[in-house]
Amino acid sequence: MAVYTHLSSSEIAEILSAYDVGSLRSAKGIAEGVSNSNWLVETVQDNAARHFILTVFEARTEAEELPFFLSLLDHLSARGQPVPRTIHTRDDARMITIRGKPAALIEFLPGISIDEPSPIEAGAVGSALAGLHRATGDFPGTRRSSLPLRTCIEMLRAHADRFDEIDPELSRLLPDCGASLLRDWPSGLPEGIIHADLFPDNVLFVNGAVTGLIDFYFACTGMLAFDLAVTHAAWSFTAKENAFRPQIGTALMQGYEASRALSPAERQALPILAQAACLRFVATRVEDWFATPADGLVRRKDPMQFVRRLAFYREQGEAAFRT
Amino acid sequence: MAVYTHLSSSEIAEILSAYDVGSLRSAKGIAEGVSNSNWLVETVQDNAARHFILTVFEARTEAEELPFFLSLLDHLSARGQPVPRTIHTRDDARMITIRGKPAALIEFLPGISIDEPSPIEAGAVGSALAGLHRATGDFPGTRRSSLPLRTCIEMLRAHADRFDEIDPELSRLLPDCGASLLRDWPSGLPEGIIHADLFPDNVLFVNGAVTGLIDFYFACTGMLAFDLAVTHAAWSFTAKENAFRPQIGTALMQGYEASRALSPAERQALPILAQAACLRFVATRVEDWFATPADGLVRRKDPMQFVRRLAFYREQGEAAFRT
Repeated sequence: MAVYTHLSSSEIAEILSAYDVGSLRSAKGIAEGVSNSNWLVETVQDNAARHFILTVFEARTEAEELPFFLSLLDHLSARGQPVPRTIHTRDDARMITIRGKPAALIEFLPGISIDEPSPIEAGAVGSALAGLHRATGDFPGTRRSSLPLRTCIEMLRAHADRFDEIDPELSRLLPDCGASLLRDWPSGLPEGIIHADLFPDNVLFVNGAVTGLIDFYFACTGMLAFDLAVTHAAWSFTAKENAFRPQIGTALMQGYEASRALSPAERQALPILAQAACLRFVATRVEDWFATPADGLVRRKDPMQFVRRLAFYREQGEAAFRT
Repeated sequence: MAVYTHLSSSEIAEILSAYDVGSLRSAKGIAEGVSNSNWLVETVQDNAARHFILTVFEARTEAEELPFFLSLLDHLSARGQPVPRTIHTRDDARMITIRGKPAALIEFLPGISIDEPSPIEAGAVGSALAGLHRATGDFPGTRRSSLPLRTCIEMLRAHADRFDEIDPELSRLLPDCGASLLRDWPSGLPEGIIHADLFPDNVLFVNGAVTGLIDFYFACTGMLAFDLAVTHAAWSFTAKENAFRPQIGTALMQGYEASRALSPAERQALPILAQAACLRFVATRVEDWFATPADGLVRRKDPMQFVRRLAFYREQGEAAFRT
């Protein structure tokens, strides 16, 4: 959440001189990314203001996979998808090195994220996700998910003896740490590059239209229907009461299917995929819960939110995905 | 350094609706302020982009003094000084309440801060400081310094037995924790509202001209010459080797005196005032040093930087301020 690498304005100005982006007008460290340092940078070029995000990658794993993420953004923006373009240096490099760490300059997209979407906005998100899936069809890169189902189950098992510290309901609603999902796990569904984390935070809107899909650092090779399930689980519930909003789920599905039709097998798999999506967020939040001091400075996300969504998908089955 | 209060884009959009600033286009939490939460906000009004900083004040002391700081900005910007304007609500309020905490919307000024100024830039800073002093002459508010000399001496005495953990040189260069400065402390010098913290970080430039003086949260009633001494101590040394740059000090003094002449008594007091200025930064950095874990995540500022500048002013006396 914080800026880990410290750069002065003059240092940023010097870094930017490798790019054809005009001269630095302002730079602000922004509170984004758990393992990155980020600056919102404004330049002036030909009397027009331009905005970028300068990111220094602090975590080693992410750094090694950076070429995948950056070339994916290049691929998608070349196909007209609403994703931030990577800016290349005058020597056509996508990555540079700052203090020995990999770094990149990425287009800043305007727009604001939405807490509780309207059906029209949910439809726009579904349509944008399908557009992403269609556009990655000919992308040559591949990347394994860092959080496949088995890993999530193991992460949860490692903390199972302390579940009651979070909430006594946790063991009751998830007695097997999600292991039963492995039994029903689908195979043979269409795969491609998926965003895998399309939460409301990661979708920008201007006047009701999707202007940006951002934060591709979970993108990986995977089942396209799993991406839709993640998005469904992330968007179709109220933030406060965690209540399912059927009209939002329906609009999301309809928006998606207007651009890319689901096969019967994909449709049938959605309840399991949505439970697995929820399990992933439960697993990461449970880990964060025990890793983060409860001092109020860092906001811990409640694992129970997605435990209850998982239970909802288990109970409702295909009814949750009615269109 | 972090965002303590969490606000979604929709919440920020709702907050902005109290102001006549157009509609929200983007909002990013920025890593600024040790006791504030800050967002860089872009709106669109009449097809033009506007930029603001939205600040939620987390610390109680600052909150109580907020009317002083905000009305000072209003006063200065009305007099053409390069400070950010406070934005008033449609009901003409400078302060609002967000989650029970005071908050304000302040103009975002473009510009970048400079690490090592040229003599021309230093002259511009001196001139801007004098402009500030002239423009506060008829400001009705007053505020006591939160870090007067006596307080700084006491802060240092509280840690004196652990000085060697920082650097053995510290006790040698500062055996009395600065107490001797009280003996020579000037009186009767011209007072007014001073910025009191005009470090390079707090001055924004565009194309060599000062476009912004920011961060007035140390502003208080005090000796005008003390403000010049703070600025001299903050600007006239190299960051790396901590070497005095006489041409920068001279340009700063000349720029200041071109707008506001110093009296002989002020000039004579500068060596003591500059030592007191350095002592203040030593005191706060020593406190931070012992309050901050050395885990590399938070960057501790080296107290020795200003211990050595203090020793320089003690040795050089008035020669450090030759013009």
